[in-house]
Amino acid sequence: MKISPDRVAQAALLAMVIELSSTPKPGNVDRGHDFEEIKFHHFLISAVSAYPVFRDAALGSEPTGALIRRAVSSWRGWGLSQNTHFGTVTLLVPLAVAAGRGGDLRGEVEGVLEETTAEDAVEFYAAFALAGARVAEVEDLSLKDPTSLNRVRSGKKTLLDLMRLSSDHDLVAREWSTGFERSFALSEHLIGKVADLGLNDGVVMTYLEALAEVPDSLVASKFGVETAKEASVRAGSILGLEVEETLRLAEELDREFIEEDINPGSTADLMGAALFISLAEGAILRCEE
Amino acid sequence: MKISPDRVAQAALLAMVIELSSTPKPGNVDRGHDFEEIKFHHFLISAVSAYPVFRDAALGSEPTGALIRRAVSSWRGWGLSQNTHFGTVTLLVPLAVAAGRGGDLRGEVEGVLEETTAEDAVEFYAAFALAGARVAEVEDLSLKDPTSLNRVRSGKKTLLDLMRLSSDHDLVAREWSTGFERSFALSEHLIGKVADLGLNDGVVMTYLEALAEVPDSLVASKFGVETAKEASVRAGSILGLEVEETLRLAEELDREFIEEDINPGSTADLMGAALFISLAEGAILRCEE
Repeated sequence: MKISPDRVAQAALLAMVIELSSTPKPGNVDRGHDFEEIKFHHFLISAVSAYPVFRDAALGSEPTGALIRRAVSSWRGWGLSQNTHFGTVTLLVPLAVAAGRGGDLRGEVEGVLEETTAEDAVEFYAAFALAGARVAEVEDLSLKDPTSLNRVRSGKKTLLDLMRLSSDHDLVAREWSTGFERSFALSEHLIGKVADLGLNDGVVMTYLEALAEVPDSLVASKFGVETAKEASVRAGSILGLEVEETLRLAEELDREFIEEDINPGSTADLMGAALFISLAEGAILRCEE
Repeated sequence: MKISPDRVAQAALLAMVIELSSTPKPGNVDRGHDFEEIKFHHFLISAVSAYPVFRDAALGSEPTGALIRRAVSSWRGWGLSQNTHFGTVTLLVPLAVAAGRGGDLRGEVEGVLEETTAEDAVEFYAAFALAGARVAEVEDLSLKDPTSLNRVRSGKKTLLDLMRLSSDHDLVAREWSTGFERSFALSEHLIGKVADLGLNDGVVMTYLEALAEVPDSLVASKFGVETAKEASVRAGSILGLEVEETLRLAEELDREFIEEDINPGSTADLMGAALFISLAEGAILRCEE
């Protein structure tokens, strides 16, 4: 199904702001609370200011790496220096390129990833540095080591190659490496939950289940794999109850995670991708007419 | 100062979503609560889906009335049937047209209003009906009376003429009639408050002061002028204290207003206009570079 570039951009923005707003989403900024240095409105700014990037992605007028870098730059134009949506944008840009091509989204996005070049890798490195993002570093391609960038630049690695190197310890890189396997699965799941529970609670329940299922890599990069696994066990422990009870316990878990600085940001990025897929495919927030 | 059409659209979206999110904003949807039938995410949808309309407004490619109608239509494309941002869009579209022209925003917007025609009035009537908006009706131009539309269509009244007919009992129409006098004054005030208190609390304090200053016309259209005046007195009664105390009392007032169904939506529309002016003029959320 081919959708217009503007509609692709709107699906991307809506994915970001609906993910942001859904509450309670333990450990992430939501309607209920800010972080000390990153506030709700900072995420609104990074979503809104990236609109032209998603529109141009759908138009197919620029390479993927350059688009990711432009998204990060566009935040600066509204005074934003915090890293907010870097992981989400890394997922949404290739999805937006694919949605702009029409056809089967899943098939198209694999093509988009396969087409990335060493130049995309160089642009992504620049975006990464600009965003001040925290991800686990790939051993032989450290961002702190200028020879890494030279090796990337020399054309040996495409952006997809780089993502494959990080796929065992970064949830965003894993999506790139698997053709967004989990994002599509989460989208299927989300569509059912939203039909049952409405938008907010559907997003929250899917987020909790995603977190319970796979340890969050942002948490792992901050505190180690054991803490990330434990956070997933804690998310799992409030599932399987009545929905209302789960939601009540999610508020408690949110307070605990915030206090412990446990921020499952990569799982939130995945939810952004799942929301985009659901929106772009017209499976939620369907057109009335 | 000339700003790009994309940046104008971003200022419009940010004005809408920042106004929406700022909390506690007694009687309006905010981060703290939804209404029964109109939820936080409905306002996100109406903001995001109108992006191309604001971009095209800044490009100067379409008449004002047609743009307002397109904004309302665009909401339908994401499944939204509730009236969310009709008043805000009625204010923001001419401001976006003016911002796209460059030069002094205040001078330009007067020109935009003066240029409206009877065709703009016809389009606005259509938008109004489509949005299911509630405003006080102008005596001799009732929306319920098809001869009104015929009289509009016959070319006797421009959209600015229509707004002037409603200016004594509708805050949005009054802005049109006065060249956005109060929106610009509120913007000045807001810029100072945001500098002192940060974005959220700056918006909330300006909203409370605006509500205290002039009775809200949406409240008046639902419950009569006396109730609207009383709501303003109640807003005024929590001002003049320490800011923290005012914010605490604003949460209480919010609960009371929600219970009484008192929704000062026109004052929220004005805050959207004041935020747009502040953003478009680069007075808040300044570019870092």
